[in-house]
Amino acid sequence: MKKQIAILGSTGSIGTQALEVIEEHPDLYEVYCLTANNKVDELAEQARKFNPAAVVIANEDKYGRLKELLCDLPDIKVYAGKQAINDIVEAGPIDMVLTAMVGFAGLSPTIHAIRARKKICLANKETLVVAGELICKLAAEYHSPIIPVDSEHSAIFQSLMGEGDNEIEKLLLTASGGPFRNFTKEQLATVTKADALRHPTWTMGAKITIDSATMMNKGFEVIEAKWLFGVPADRIQVLVHPQSIVHSAVQFRDGAVKAQLGVPDMRLPIQFAFSYPDRLHLNGERLDLFRQPLEFFEPDMDKFCCLALAFEAIRKGGNMPCIVNAANEVVNHGFLEDRCSFTQMSDIIERTMERVAFSGEADYATYVATDAEARRVATELLEI
Amino acid sequence: MKKQIAILGSTGSIGTQALEVIEEHPDLYEVYCLTANNKVDELAEQARKFNPAAVVIANEDKYGRLKELLCDLPDIKVYAGKQAINDIVEAGPIDMVLTAMVGFAGLSPTIHAIRARKKICLANKETLVVAGELICKLAAEYHSPIIPVDSEHSAIFQSLMGEGDNEIEKLLLTASGGPFRNFTKEQLATVTKADALRHPTWTMGAKITIDSATMMNKGFEVIEAKWLFGVPADRIQVLVHPQSIVHSAVQFRDGAVKAQLGVPDMRLPIQFAFSYPDRLHLNGERLDLFRQPLEFFEPDMDKFCCLALAFEAIRKGGNMPCIVNAANEVVNHGFLEDRCSFTQMSDIIERTMERVAFSGEADYATYVATDAEARRVATELLEI
Repeated sequence: MKKQIAILGSTGSIGTQALEVIEEHPDLYEVYCLTANNKVDELAEQARKFNPAAVVIANEDKYGRLKELLCDLPDIKVYAGKQAINDIVEAGPIDMVLTAMVGFAGLSPTIHAIRARKKICLANKETLVVAGELICKLAAEYHSPIIPVDSEHSAIFQSLMGEGDNEIEKLLLTASGGPFRNFTKEQLATVTKADALRHPTWTMGAKITIDSATMMNKGFEVIEAKWLFGVPADRIQVLVHPQSIVHSAVQFRDGAVKAQLGVPDMRLPIQFAFSYPDRLHLNGERLDLFRQPLEFFEPDMDKFCCLALAFEAIRKGGNMPCIVNAANEVVNHGFLEDRCSFTQMSDIIERTMERVAFSGEADYATYVATDAEARRVATELLEI
Repeated sequence: MKKQIAILGSTGSIGTQALEVIEEHPDLYEVYCLTANNKVDELAEQARKFNPAAVVIANEDKYGRLKELLCDLPDIKVYAGKQAINDIVEAGPIDMVLTAMVGFAGLSPTIHAIRARKKICLANKETLVVAGELICKLAAEYHSPIIPVDSEHSAIFQSLMGEGDNEIEKLLLTASGGPFRNFTKEQLATVTKADALRHPTWTMGAKITIDSATMMNKGFEVIEAKWLFGVPADRIQVLVHPQSIVHSAVQFRDGAVKAQLGVPDMRLPIQFAFSYPDRLHLNGERLDLFRQPLEFFEPDMDKFCCLALAFEAIRKGGNMPCIVNAANEVVNHGFLEDRCSFTQMSDIIERTMERVAFSGEADYATYVATDAEARRVATELLEI
């Protein structure tokens, strides 16, 4: 029986690579549904190629256009709006849901998919950053497995295979360090959007590329790792590893460190999330360890303030990571629109953390209210 | 219930470290029996401390001395001779047998332990080098698990946990490169015993330290890896890794590489062989990846001829690895006694490979006959 897959965010970087993986294994996987936020033409083209049962465009204004583009394919049901995404992930035939959309918008459909007991291939960071406690509780309650797709968390997940309850002493989370690894604080103040979009090792969407440049992305990954693997933040160590070969590692109580290595290729963790615990053949370059030495450096949290803020947020808990995430979405967008400088991003996030009311509650309503309030405050600060 | 352990070769480097591990976990492990080749005083001292049910000294001339040393401890049975070692490993209460003796002598007791369905913690290389085919057949027939204790094979074993039948694309076997890594062929011709005994990263017995310097040790490990993990030699890659941090790795069919890393400490693989699949706490230094970059180089087989000879032996199969092992034991001993130069070792091994009759048979009698003949030939060549 072919596994039926729902891809949320199919026109993004992860989504398109997921479709490449599915295309390589037509005997194993079938696309049940594709969703996109805005890119209606790409979505229609993907639907034409993969013939899913349904497509959803989140932006309701684009419904007419999508309907028109697919009018000669009456077997593909066409929907629009966020609620339609929540509904479609619950569809009976779906085996796996790949959550590859960007931002807070990923939270609600992920919760619906968990409640429908689907296997979650988790690529949307914000889900665990914002709502880790809630998501973990729900996943346990509904016995819905969560397989991480981020290369770092996939590496940790792979390193933990077969380890049962063996105690984790430390998680070693690697970071490329981004394009500004060797910049001074002064240099950071004047970097441009174009500089920040030039990631040294990974080709990704704009939002995450900026988050990598500020290292907020790594901060979010620390928060995700805490929830995925049940390890407190003080036992998660970030290592700047410019070669991006060691994707992350686990240190056990006997001192043994297990790591997953490879060339940077997101198709691997995507495919592995689909095929776990099996591994399928994957075409592509193989690791050549002779090419360069592997280096590891301590991250400079004084320079990359966003990483320090993320650690602070996870230590405080409650809605604090939600506040950081919302403020970050605002400033990230602001930076891409040239409305703030690189270093102003962390300043605004920090001030948003001070201004939005703290709450220890871990329910969806609190997250929604916090998210809205933090966005309001950060936007206000951005406009000053 | 405490696990009862037989330690064969308890006075060697692996044996003494195994006793350290057992001492740390008195609630889990108990020494059932200790054996040594010659070091009767150390053996008696260990027996006094660990109170095993039995001790065996392989050298029968030392029986009287051992008996005398332990005369006030009548609960400890004292035996002598190789047959006594074969007999004792079959004892009912024994759960695990650590085969930590050096050389061809390890083969026979290992076969007896497998036939008695004991769990084998395999530290004796020659067992698989000489008789891999036979040992694997017996282990399958008697359902006797073999857990490797060599740091490299333990690393591969750990990397394979939870991977089920996932296809191995390549084994990456790391080697420190030994003390002569950057020597020229000319320099190698004049190195002394003292130079060769100075291993850069591991403290081990003399035999294996010399084998590391010639890289024959790595060649043997390739042969062992072939049998332990069922991977042909052309899919086993040796990587010179001077830092000895990555203990070895596995590349799967999806390109993912999993590795086990750590500071060089043999207590880890010894303890893990005992505790597998659980991990126990191990005191000691933890890996610090910030300390040095990790480098990997292709081995120079033209310079380290022993490595090339080992690859040739495993490709030819049959009794060829047995010939190489026997000749190597002779020249290793000869080098330690200043009876041949460093580079003469590989010459003699190569000529022994040419002179001893090849056999495709994989039975114990063939190995014994081949071993004797190869020793005779190598000794003759050494005396020229």
